[in-house]
Amino acid sequence: MGGDHAPAEVIDGAILALEDGAHVILVGDQERIEPLLEERGVEIPVAHASQVIDFHDDAARAIRDKRDASIVVAARLVKDGEADAMVSAGSTGAVMAAATFLIGRLPGVTRAGIASIYPTGHVILDVGANIECKPEHLVQFAVMGAALATVYVHIDNPTVGLLNIGEEPTKGRDVERAAYQLLMDSAAVNFVGNVEGRDIATKKADVIVTDGFTGNVFLKSTEGAGKAIQQMIMETVAQPAYAEHVAGLMPAFLELRERLSAETVGGAHLVGTQGVVVIAHGSSSRFAIRNAIRIATEGADSGLVRKISAGIEAAVH
Amino acid sequence: MGGDHAPAEVIDGAILALEDGAHVILVGDQERIEPLLEERGVEIPVAHASQVIDFHDDAARAIRDKRDASIVVAARLVKDGEADAMVSAGSTGAVMAAATFLIGRLPGVTRAGIASIYPTGHVILDVGANIECKPEHLVQFAVMGAALATVYVHIDNPTVGLLNIGEEPTKGRDVERAAYQLLMDSAAVNFVGNVEGRDIATKKADVIVTDGFTGNVFLKSTEGAGKAIQQMIMETVAQPAYAEHVAGLMPAFLELRERLSAETVGGAHLVGTQGVVVIAHGSSSRFAIRNAIRIATEGADSGLVRKISAGIEAAVH
Repeated sequence: MGGDHAPAEVIDGAILALEDGAHVILVGDQERIEPLLEERGVEIPVAHASQVIDFHDDAARAIRDKRDASIVVAARLVKDGEADAMVSAGSTGAVMAAATFLIGRLPGVTRAGIASIYPTGHVILDVGANIECKPEHLVQFAVMGAALATVYVHIDNPTVGLLNIGEEPTKGRDVERAAYQLLMDSAAVNFVGNVEGRDIATKKADVIVTDGFTGNVFLKSTEGAGKAIQQMIMETVAQPAYAEHVAGLMPAFLELRERLSAETVGGAHLVGTQGVVVIAHGSSSRFAIRNAIRIATEGADSGLVRKISAGIEAAVH
Repeated sequence: MGGDHAPAEVIDGAILALEDGAHVILVGDQERIEPLLEERGVEIPVAHASQVIDFHDDAARAIRDKRDASIVVAARLVKDGEADAMVSAGSTGAVMAAATFLIGRLPGVTRAGIASIYPTGHVILDVGANIECKPEHLVQFAVMGAALATVYVHIDNPTVGLLNIGEEPTKGRDVERAAYQLLMDSAAVNFVGNVEGRDIATKKADVIVTDGFTGNVFLKSTEGAGKAIQQMIMETVAQPAYAEHVAGLMPAFLELRERLSAETVGGAHLVGTQGVVVIAHGSSSRFAIRNAIRIATEGADSGLVRKISAGIEAAVH
C-alpha cells in the first residue's frame, strides 16, 4: 500500500518478480488488491491489512496505533518467520520503526542504519536513519556495511573508510576523531582510514561510514551532481552539428542512464534488525519494485542477517 | 610561493593575468622569482618575503612565528591598502589565519567562511572554514553568499536555501532547525527554506548555506560524482562501434570538461574579512592562477567587500 503508485504499480512489480522466481506475499487491503490481481489473471497470496500509514503520520506512534497497517503486518510476517524479507515503498520512518520494534534489533546493534549501494559498487551508510551518531554506531555501520558489500558487491573482506574532510586522523569533528580510533582498534573492521566525498570515484574504500545527516547530504548531492551533469551534457550537445553523433551514441547514453537509475538499484537497505528489510523509493515504478524484491530475495538467500550478526559479534568481543 | 608548482607556475599565471589587464604584485622570495621573470622577459613588481608557510605548519602559530612568510606579507599588503585583493595557492589554514588576524574580520562577522561557486552558478558556503557552526553563523554565510552571487553570478536579490535532509522546517539537527527560524526572520536574507543536495540541479536557491563539515563533504562528493560519471561514460562508449561518434562529439566533451574544471573556477572565496581573498587549489596550473586573479580583480572592482559589509549591517540591525 506504500508509495505514490500503490497498489497497482506495486502489484505489477510483484508480477515481474514472480518471473524472476521470487515468492511474494502482497500485504494490504484485500478488497483493493484482489480485483487488480484478477484483472491481470495472476494469483499471488495476499496478507490482509486494513490500515495504511502515510507520510504525515508520526512513525513511532503510527506503528502502535495502526496495528493493522500494511507495514506493521509485513513486519510481523518477518518476525513470525512467515516471510524471509520485507519490501516497502511506504514511509521510511514507519518502516524503520516497524522493523526496529517488531522485528527487533540484532543483539549488539544499538542503531539500525540505512545503507545505499551506489552504481559504482560503494556501500554508504548511514544515509538517513540517525541524524546524529556516536562513534560506536559508526563501528556498527562499518560491520553491517561490510556484510552488504560481501553479499551484493561480492567483495571478500571489504575495506571501510570513514567519511571525513581530510585524510589525517585529527580531521573532522569529535565524532570522526573518536570513530577513527575505534575503527582503527577494531579487529572486525578492515579500516583504511578517512575517505572524502571524491573517493566515490576511487577504490580506496568499499564501504563508507558516516552519520545519517552527512550520509543523506552525500547521497542527494551525488544524485544532484549526476542530474546537473546530465543537463550540461544535453545543453552542450544540443547543436545541430552534433545531432548525428548524439543519435549514434544513444544506446550508450541509455545504458548509462539505466546504470545510474535509482530504479535499477531498487532500494536502500535497512540493516541492524533481525530481518532483511528493503526500502524502495516512494516514486518506485514496477521495475524499481521488481529490483527491490530481487535484492530482498538475494539478501535472504545469502544469509545477510547471519553475516551481519556474526560481524557484530566479532566487533563487540 | 604557495602550491605544488610555485613559484614558476604561479609566475606564468600572473603573466597570463597581465594580458587580461590585471595589476599584479608577486609576493615571495625575490632571489627565486626575479630570475624567472627575467628568463620570461617580463617585469612584474615583487614584494619580497623570505619565509614560506607550508602545509605541515600549524596555521595560527605560523602566521605569528613566520612574520616574513609570503602569505603574511600578502595579507599585510591588503591590510595597508597597497593591494586590493590577495590570491594564494598555499595552505588554506594559513590564508584563513592571515586574512582573519591581519586583514581583520568585517564588523558584525563572527566567522569568516569559504565559499565555492559551482559551474551551475550556485554559491555554496561554508565549504570548510568552520567545521561546526552556530545558527547565527549560517545567517552571516547567507548574507555573504548572496553578495557573491550578486557579483559573480549577476543575480539581483539571490535566493538562499539551507542545506538539509528534507523540506520541512523541523528537519535536520538542532543547528538547522534554529538556523531555519533565524533565516526566516531575517529581512536581510531572501530565504526560500530548506534545500537538499539534489537542488544543485535545480534553481530553487542561488545560495546554499551549511556548516563547513557538511559543505566540504558536499563539495567533494559532487566532485567525486562528476569523476565517477566521467569514468562510466568512458567505459560505456569504449566499444569500437562508437569510436566515430565519440570523435565527432569530442569538441563538446572538451567544452564540458572545461566548464566543469576546477581550473576554470580559479579558486574559492574567503569571505567575511575586510579584503578580497581568493584561495586557489594547491595543484593550480597557470590557467587556474590566471582565473583566480581574474575573480580577485572582479571582486575588488565590483566592491564585493562593501556589498558584504552592507548585507551584514542589514542583517545585524
